[in-house]
Parts: sequence; structure tokens; C-alpha cells
Amino acid sequence: MKAAVMTDIGVIEMQERPMPVCGDTDVIVEITDVGVCGSDIHYFEEGKIGEFVVEDDIVLGHESAGIVREVGDSVDGLTTNTKVAIEPGYPCRRCDYCKQGDYHLCTEITFMATPPDDGAFAQYVAWPADFVYPLPEGMSLQEGALCEPLSVGIHACQVGDISVGDRVLITGAGPIGLMGMETAFAYGASEVYVSDVVQSKLDIADARGATGTIDGRTKALGDAVDRLTDSEGVDVVIEASGAPDVYTSVLEGIRPGGTIVAVGLPSAAEIPFDFTGLTTREINVQGSFRYNNTYGEAIDLISSGTVDVAGIIDREYDFDEITEAMIRAQDHEIVKTMISMDAT
Amino acid sequence: MKAAVMTDIGVIEMQERPMPVCGDTDVIVEITDVGVCGSDIHYFEEGKIGEFVVEDDIVLGHESAGIVREVGDSVDGLTTNTKVAIEPGYPCRRCDYCKQGDYHLCTEITFMATPPDDGAFAQYVAWPADFVYPLPEGMSLQEGALCEPLSVGIHACQVGDISVGDRVLITGAGPIGLMGMETAFAYGASEVYVSDVVQSKLDIADARGATGTIDGRTKALGDAVDRLTDSEGVDVVIEASGAPDVYTSVLEGIRPGGTIVAVGLPSAAEIPFDFTGLTTREINVQGSFRYNNTYGEAIDLISSGTVDVAGIIDREYDFDEITEAMIRAQDHEIVKTMISMDAT
Amino acid sequence: MKAAVMTDIGVIEMQERPMPVCGDTDVIVEITDVGVCGSDIHYFEEGKIGEFVVEDDIVLGHESAGIVREVGDSVDGLTTNTKVAIEPGYPCRRCDYCKQGDYHLCTEITFMATPPDDGAFAQYVAWPADFVYPLPEGMSLQEGALCEPLSVGIHACQVGDISVGDRVLITGAGPIGLMGMETAFAYGASEVYVSDVVQSKLDIADARGATGTIDGRTKALGDAVDRLTDSEGVDVVIEASGAPDVYTSVLEGIRPGGTIVAVGLPSAAEIPFDFTGLTTREINVQGSFRYNNTYGEAIDLISSGTVDVAGIIDREYDFDEITEAMIRAQDHEIVKTMISMDAT
Amino acid sequence: MKAAVMTDIGVIEMQERPMPVCGDTDVIVEITDVGVCGSDIHYFEEGKIGEFVVEDDIVLGHESAGIVREVGDSVDGLTTNTKVAIEPGYPCRRCDYCKQGDYHLCTEITFMATPPDDGAFAQYVAWPADFVYPLPEGMSLQEGALCEPLSVGIHACQVGDISVGDRVLITGAGPIGLMGMETAFAYGASEVYVSDVVQSKLDIADARGATGTIDGRTKALGDAVDRLTDSEGVDVVIEASGAPDVYTSVLEGIRPGGTIVAVGLPSAAEIPFDFTGLTTREINVQGSFRYNNTYGEAIDLISSGTVDVAGIIDREYDFDEITEAMIRAQDHEIVKTMISMDAT
Repeated sequence: MKAAVMTDIGVIEMQERPMPVCGDTDVIVEITDVGVCGSDIHYFEEGKIGEFVVEDDIVLGHESAGIVREVGDSVDGLTTNTKVAIEPGYPCRRCDYCKQGDYHLCTEITFMATPPDDGAFAQYVAWPADFVYPLPEGMSLQEGALCEPLSVGIHACQVGDISVGDRVLITGAGPIGLMGMETAFAYGASEVYVSDVVQSKLDIADARGATGTIDGRTKALGDAVDRLTDSEGVDVVIEASGAPDVYTSVLEGIRPGGTIVAVGLPSAAEIPFDFTGLTTREINVQGSFRYNNTYGEAIDLISSGTVDVAGIIDREYDFDEITEAMIRAQDHEIVKTMISMDAT
Repeated sequence: MKAAVMTDIGVIEMQERPMPVCGDTDVIVEITDVGVCGSDIHYFEEGKIGEFVVEDDIVLGHESAGIVREVGDSVDGLTTNTKVAIEPGYPCRRCDYCKQGDYHLCTEITFMATPPDDGAFAQYVAWPADFVYPLPEGMSLQEGALCEPLSVGIHACQVGDISVGDRVLITGAGPIGLMGMETAFAYGASEVYVSDVVQSKLDIADARGATGTIDGRTKALGDAVDRLTDSEGVDVVIEASGAPDVYTSVLEGIRPGGTIVAVGLPSAAEIPFDFTGLTTREINVQGSFRYNNTYGEAIDLISSGTVDVAGIIDREYDFDEITEAMIRAQDHEIVKTMISMDAT
Repeated sequence: MKAAVMTDIGVIEMQERPMPVCGDTDVIVEITDVGVCGSDIHYFEEGKIGEFVVEDDIVLGHESAGIVREVGDSVDGLTTNTKVAIEPGYPCRRCDYCKQGDYHLCTEITFMATPPDDGAFAQYVAWPADFVYPLPEGMSLQEGALCEPLSVGIHACQVGDISVGDRVLITGAGPIGLMGMETAFAYGASEVYVSDVVQSKLDIADARGATGTIDGRTKALGDAVDRLTDSEGVDVVIEASGAPDVYTSVLEGIRPGGTIVAVGLPSAAEIPFDFTGLTTREINVQGSFRYNNTYGEAIDLISSGTVDVAGIIDREYDFDEITEAMIRAQDHEIVKTMISMDAT
Repeated sequence: MKAAVMTDIGVIEMQERPMPVCGDTDVIVEITDVGVCGSDIHYFEEGKIGEFVVEDDIVLGHESAGIVREVGDSVDGLTTNTKVAIEPGYPCRRCDYCKQGDYHLCTEITFMATPPDDGAFAQYVAWPADFVYPLPEGMSLQEGALCEPLSVGIHACQVGDISVGDRVLITGAGPIGLMGMETAFAYGASEVYVSDVVQSKLDIADARGATGTIDGRTKALGDAVDRLTDSEGVDVVIEASGAPDVYTSVLEGIRPGGTIVAVGLPSAAEIPFDFTGLTTREINVQGSFRYNNTYGEAIDLISSGTVDVAGIIDREYDFDEITEAMIRAQDHEIVKTMISMDAT
């Protein structure tokens, strides 16, 4: 089978690899659609993200969907030719985190396109059947692939405990921010504001129903939020930009007792932060990493039309054009690039 | 009556003031014992803490106990000559925070010794009866006064959600840290480590039952914690030192999904912090400000002997010696200074 | 002023009463609209509900809205001629329940039309300003009055912890059940089923968007739910009928770990219940009584069009016709009766 | 190997069975100590508990400990000759309940001595290594076996959310009730009352530190609790007796908003219950079934001396005497019977 292998920083080669083997509890999925994530671009550009470092050849891509082509002997409830979304991380199932339901914190997790684990820019993948989800009638494979970034947004809303009547600010109108906005509404938020430094992305947020947008280039964030919320502040901020100055500048725009959900990964190793402000206003900064138990919900939100994931796709490439796709995806105006494989 | 009034930075004068008036739902308490808090010393030294600025004469002191001398007409359940602890903040009772039980976040709260509200370094105080708590048989007035800092520790344990079997690190062996240690054990913690930079305070933590102590002058905090916990990390850190370098240096010593409770107020406006580490390990930094609904529990913990508050007192002064007490209390080796008024 | 006073079971007289006096923190509201609640009908028919017994003349009605006519001296933020909804219970503000935010459990609460407290079937009411809520532009006074039953539904969804993707069954298609259905959707439920024994009410539930309805006269409830949910069972049941046989018959239709929210008040003193089934499937039966901190949210849900409260009104009467209204409201086909007073 | 097989109601035969096979991720444990649980006695006497029915030969016993004799190829961290406690249920690891951490609700769980799964009254058992827990220095194998009933008590305290300062009533002074009492104290309960109908068990509860005991034969439960708690009522009841009349009789003794944890399995199919009382006082009845993620905590509580599990053992038998042990264990005065196998 063909696989797109990153052999060096900035270099992706199409290689022939052996077909994966289908374990007893696995299925083989023929991959048809893969989204390009910011992390793929980071690895392609710099070879690392924080403590995750690429040290060998790696297949990138972890937002994937496809068609089941083989089913392991012990698998119930999945049949060949079923269209599926693939949850890209499967855990050890045996450690304390797994047993407590926090399998995304499992230190033994196998996670696509996180070194040293290969990802989905390949024709076939063998994967545990219980991390493979059939798509309902009427949901496309591209939508299936985008269950992954949507899951990041769902998890952020969950750890931020967004509920009916909440005011929310989302900083960063990329895929996570835009889908997180609709997810926040699904969780009952009555007002969702979005900030970014790229006008075209603010326009998209507006078009998709943001209660208001904030141009991060020109306005002090806390002041802007204060003005939009009649000085009440937001209940929850979802930080999805990675911009280093957001954390402290947003503090004033949060109500006492409110929460910042930290999703974006800032490039700076350390960012100055006002801990006195955090303490005296009893703010909570909650890290949100990947997700757990979200795929069923993601499929519901997409198939019911609650969240429009297809609408964030603005670039599509064939599998053969993957290098070009990766280079072009570095443009900050692009929201979501999708790669299509021709299914057999 | 006599009141100790801070008229300028570093200047406290004993003044004669009119007796307070007892409202319908109030009691008049003759103050007998007041603890000196780090915040009193801050105001005395610098005239401000963060955004709280002393702009006028102020009476300091908010860790107080005394004897009820007058009871308002509508008050049930309190009688004269009862020994009581005073909760130093009473809220508006009408805003959303009050109605939701988060009265410590009420923006209209009256809080002793926080500008512009006067505190308890005075012979008499009129106070809402429902924020005045009778002391059980056998509990001293000094212990009553120390319900206040104990409440800070209780609230920190509560927002940190400490429960049975948790490993806890407390950074800072001052009053909050030392009482917080015993409170953490009361909440079921199986191991509580304490760090400080003053050896005599570590010795006290040891003597009071710390599972282990860490000398913050010589060891990397995260490494030290890792070694003490067989590389598992602690579940919760209670940051009670205000030292600016604790936040990032402790990150590595916390298990994925763990919590830092931010209680200490750092002097630096902004502190560099590793937000990528927070996010990828899904750490939670939870501000903890004052407390709500803790006094009943504080009295229980003291009167049952679970927490030894009297044992942290290492200096006692008469009311007349208050200026000297304030000056001496700046010594970092002193844990808790108490002021005694002679009750009539 | 005129007040409709229940002087005996089944007897309501229009009486002249003195105007209420406006306390310092109160407003005087001229009542314009009052909904008839099932509890009003119970008191009218039987003179008691459980341990609440009418022993004296009483003014019924607690779902009310009107226009502010006088404002107490200490009141901020409310002006005369403002249209408002009235939250019918105000608590003592001083007990543990109040301070913890559970003011609906305050044993000293004053609650309209619960003996011995008078209700809103009167021209004017004096009420604490912080339990009186201005209606936004475009929201009618009838809708304001219906914030009360909607609040019961909101509280039920909250204590049932309904969230995105949940399957919900609501037993009883009265006002609470119908508004609860839309509220459950607002909390993110993906499927909401409704059961009742009156066909016309099931038709209304259908027309308002129920995922499915169950005719409680002919089908075993658990089986019906099982069939509708592909044997997965619902996550939450909101019991809003008071029918005694619901509790055990619904158990089989709930997934292990699921919740029954008990809102309806059964007439039978004791109901047979399968506690072994509850325990071995780890079901939770959560009582839900009145509500706390819901009015802001109720106004949001109505004014945003998320919940259609006006649509459940099927009978309207003038204040003078109140006895007839009460008698007719006993008909089980009627969902919500509204009483209108002519504002001056 | 030898196994004690129940071949009919009331009939246990010692049979020779083949040695179990050690899977890749399993260990083989030589069983040394097994406690007799009420459920073992139920199956022995009646052949069923609720919907669990014995239809074939079965090996009873699920409170077990022993010594590791063989270790599967993929197992890390366990070596032969290690003394271990065995958690008697292992789940499918793949369903939603497992992935959410509620593995005790897994419908595919294999649970010792629950039909059709065999238990631990046998010389050897093969078991997944991650459900086998090494005992710390100084903890006996009998104590290891009693991690199982202690886990039931821990889970009850967890689902009842017992915390510092809570008042608790435990109904039933059997093994769960007695260990639950000490566990409730470990969770911070300030007062734990215990009721039973057998005087000798009340005496044990007294001796083990109950705040007070209630003789269930002579006193109305709610009244007794009310008197003991100055009419405040308890926060949490742990129902561990299975007595049918407890549920309604205890309601009056619980504070509004309080919780009943339902652990005991009543023999009656349906029990009359006052749902109106539950609703108007917003009580919560929470089923508690088995446990999840408790063994580490159980070992901590035992090895730290916080909970005395060995002290509840009042009868010991050899493996050969198992039939006699089962017959005698039906005596209501006996708290805990232990079976010892002679390790090789």
C-alpha cells in the first residue's frame, strides 16, 4: 500500500509499505479522507511540538475516515464496507487513567501522527474496532474525519463545564475555535464571542453565528469583552489560538469564579501570567488535552446539523498533492485543508 | 472605645472611637483575640495588596474572636456573654454570587481590614449575627480567632477537591500551609509534603506530621516531588508561599490531570508560566480566594482535635504593643502572632 | 385593592384588602397575569398538599408577572413602569441553606400560595426587589408569569444533570413536562420522549418536537422506552406526572447508572418501589423541589425563542372569573390556564 | 486442583478440576484466604439474588487473596511469590461504561461467584494482572481478602459524596456497615450513627467508635436520628441492611437535600416508599452497586490502620469445612466468616 512518509523536516515521500495486519479485535480501514491539523504542520515545519519530537520516519495525519475492509474475528457490530470515523488514539486499557475513564491521559496511548506512532496518510490502517465509529446515513466521510477536531472542541466545552446561559469567549478562529463556537452553543451558551487577528476568520465566525467578534490586533481583549458583556464578563474562555499574550490580557474580561480552558499550544516556552489576578478573582485555568469519550457525541452533533463541520473546509487536495497541501496549509488564512484518497 | 488605627504606612495610633451601634440583626462583640495575618503586614508595610489600596485611616485585623455583649432585636440563638468567632466578611445577600452560595465573590462584600472597611483591632465590633459563631465548650478564644486562617486552608482543600488517598504538596509552611496540611489529612490525603525556604518552618511541618519536607532553597521542586512519590507525582499542590518560581517548577511533580490551588499572593505582577506543560498534561490551576461556608467546619476540626491551630502561635502581644507586634511579625521565621485585648 | 381569597375548600371570594407597604428593599408590583398551577387546584380542591395544609384564608396563585408601581429607597436597578416577572419565594438569606446557594431548601422561605403565605391573585404585591426580574423587550407579561413553571423544568434538568447527547424520558405532558421537554433539548439532550395518558397532550408533545411519545394507558413503560432507544435505555427520566406506577415501571427503561428526577407529587402516601433494581443497576432517584437561581435562565430561554411557553396556554380568564377558571382547570385535558388582571 | 463446587441449593462438593491456564496478561494466584459474603449465603440458600440465578454448577467466593504462582508473558510489575488481593470483577474494557471509568456497570463483566462465573473457593485462579494488587509489607492475606467488602463501603461513601463535617447514619451493622462506618470517618464525617436489630452488632459498632447506635427493634428510626442530631438530621444515610422498612422510616431523619445510598439488597421485590417526602425535601436515593477503582484506596486505608478490617472476623474455617462454614454463617450474629486454604 501507499503511505506518505515524512523522512525529514519539510520532506514527505510517497512510499510503498506492507499492508497492516488485522488483529483479533481490530478492523482494517481503507482511508479515504484525512484533515490536516495544525500539529501536522508543526511537525512538518519544525519536527517537534513541546516534548514530542520526531526522531524517525513518520506518517502524519490523524483526522481520518474511511471504509472498513476487513474485520477481526472477535469483533461484533462492524462489517466490511461500512463508512467509519477513526478515533486516532487507543490506550493501554489497564492503567489507572484508563480504568478511571481518563484514557486520554494514559501514558501508553498509541496516538496517530504523534512520534513515534504513524498516522493516517496511508491507504490502509489497522485499528481497534472499538475506536472506529460507523457513520450514520447521510454523514459524509469528510465529516467523519472532522469528528477529530470537533472532539477537541467538545472536550474543551466539557472541561470548561459550559452550560445553559453561559457567556463564552473563544480566542482563535481556527478549526477548533469555529467548531468550538457551535459546540458551546450546543452546550447551551447564550452568547459566544470570538477573537482572532485575521479578518477573514472573524468574518467566518460572524457568518457562522458568533454573538460578536473581536479583532485581536487593535483592541485590548479584556476591555472588549467587558464592553460586549455590559461589564459582567464571560463565564468561560476557550483559548484556542496559542497566542502568548491572551492569558493575562483576557483575565479582566472574565467574571469572578470563571474559567479559562487552555487548548491552544503557545510557541513560547513560558508566558508571563498574573497569578494575583487569578487568585483574587478565583479564576480557574483548566488544561484541555485531546479528548475522551467524545466520538459518539461528535457524530450526533454533526448528523443532527447542530455543528457544521464541512463548512470549515476551504482547501482540498488529492493524496498525491500532499506536500503541496502541507506547504499551503501554513497560510494563516486557511482554516481546514482536507486530503482525499481515491478509495478502491 | 479604643481602636488601633493605621494612619499612614507603618504608623498605628491608639484612638478613642464611638461605640458601634447594634443593628436589628447584629450583635456587638467585645474583641479579645486577634491574629496578625500576612495581609495586615502587607498593608502596614506597603499600604496595598494588588488592587486593594489603603487611601484613608484604617483599622487592621480580621482574625478575631471575642464575647457577645449586646444582641439585636431580631437575633435568635445568640446570647450575651457567649464566646464567639467572627467571620470577617459579610456579603450583600442579594447578588447572583450570594444567591448561588459564592458569597465570597460578592463584589459588595464588607471585609474587615480590606480598604475601606475597618477590622478588629478595636475593643468592640458590631457584626451580623449569622456571621458570628459560638465556640463549643473547651475551645479557646485564640482558637476561635484562628478559624479565619484555617478557613483559608479548608477552602483551598475544597476547591482542590482533595479526597481519600490523594497525594498533596503544600508549598509554603506559614499558617495557611501548616493548617492546610492538617486539613488535607482531614480530607483524606494519604501523603502531604511541605516545602519552604526557612528551615525552622520545615521543622515545624515535620513535627506536625508532614509525610516529607522539601527544602526549597536547594532542590528542584518537581524533581524532589517526583522522587518522594516514586515518579507518580502529586494529585494536588496547594501554593501557599507566593514565591514566583513555584508555579512552573512544580508542574513536573504533578500527575497528569492534577491540580494546583493558587492561594498565595505573589508580589510580582506577572510570573512566567509554562502553559504548554499545563495543557499537554491537562493540569488545572484553580484560584482560591478567602472562603465561604467554612466556619462550622473549622470549629469542628479544631474542637475535635483534628487540626491544631493553637500550636502555630509563636508570638503573643497585648493590644498596647500592637505596633511592635506588627514590626516583629515581618520576620519570616515567625508563623503566627496573636494580639490579646483584656476583656472587661 | 382587590384580592381573590380562598375562604374554604372550593370557595374563592373577591375581597377588598389594604395596599401592601413597600419596604426599603422592596418594590410594589401591580399584578397583570397569573398562571394557575396544579398546586393551586389541589389547595382549592382538597385544602392541602402533603404536609402543607391550608388552615386559614389564603390568596392562591404564584406564577405571576406585572408592572412595578413603587420602588423602595434602597433599591437599585428597578424603576416604576417596568414589566417584571416575580419569583414567588424569597428566603431568610441567613441560614446555612441560603448561604450555600440552596435557598429553595430554606425552612423560613416565604412562598406565595403555600400556607400560610398569600399569593398573587391580588392587584398588588410587595416583594423583595432582587426576586423581581425585568422582562426584556418583546417578552410578554404572560411569558413572564410562566417563568415560574419553566423554572421547575429548568431545575429538574439541572439536578438530573442533562447534557449533550443524553436520551431523556419525560413522564407527564402537563406544563412542567412540555416545557421540560424543550428545556431538556436546550441542555443538549439528543432525544426526548414524552409519555402521558391523555391523547391530546401527547399530540401537543408531538407537535412541539418530542422525539417520540408513549401512550401510558396501553404500553408497559420500560418496554416502550427500550424499543424506542434500541434497548439502550434513557439516561434521565423526569417524572412529572405524579402517577404512582411510573417509578417502578420505568426502571427497566433506564440505562445502568441513569437518573430519575422526581418532580411530580403523587397523591398516594407510599408507592411500591423496586429498590433491588435501583441498587443493582445503580440508578439514582433525585428529588427536585421548586428551583433556585433559575429566573435569569428562564428569561433567556423564553426571549431567545428556545422554549415556547406562551404556546402551552389553552385557557384565559379575567380576574373576576377566577372561581370558574379554577373549576374548569381541573379538567385533565387543559394544560395551562392564565388569569388576566386589567392593569390600571 | 481442588475446587468447592455448589452442585445444588445447599450442596457444596469438593471436586478435582484442571489447573487454570495463564493468559498473556494474566497471573495465576494460589488462593489462601476467602471471606464469606452475604451473597454467597444467598446463593447457597436460595440459588438466586434478584435477577441473578444459579442454573449450573458454580464455585462461590469472591473476597479473596493469595500468592502469585505464575505470571503471563506481557505482565509487568508482578512477580511470583507476591502476596496479592484479587478484585473479583474484570470488565470488557471496550464498551462505553468501561471507557468512561464505570467499569462496574459493564454488562460483559466477569464477576466471581455471580452466575455463571466461578469464584475463588478453589486452589488456583487465573486472573488479569491489572485486577490483582500486591499487598504492602505488614498487611495480611486475610486483610487482602477483605479489600473486597471494604471496597463496597468505599464506593458507597464515594457515591454518597461524604465529606468533612458530614453527619452519617449507617443502617445495618454487618461487614459493609461496620467497615463503611470507619470509611465514612476517613472521608471526614464528623458523626457516624449505626442502627441494627441485633444487640451484639450494635455493641461492636460502639466498640469500633460509632458516634451513637440505634436499636432498630424499638425506636422509630427518623425520630431517633432527629434526637441524636438536635433535629438537624443526617446528611447521608448508607442503607446496608436490606431491611424493607428502612427507606421510608429514615426519611424524616435526613436533612433537606440529603442522600440515601442504597447498598443493601432487600428481599422484598417492592417496598412502599414516600416519594412525596423525597420530592418536597429534595432527597436523593443513590444506588451503589459493587465498586470501581477502589482497591488502591482500600489497601491504603487498611495498611495505614485507618480501617480495621481484621477486627470484623469472628469465625474461621479450613477449606475442607466449607459446607459447615456456609451453614453457620447464616446466623445473624456472625459478622464475617473467613475460609483459609493451606498454601503449598
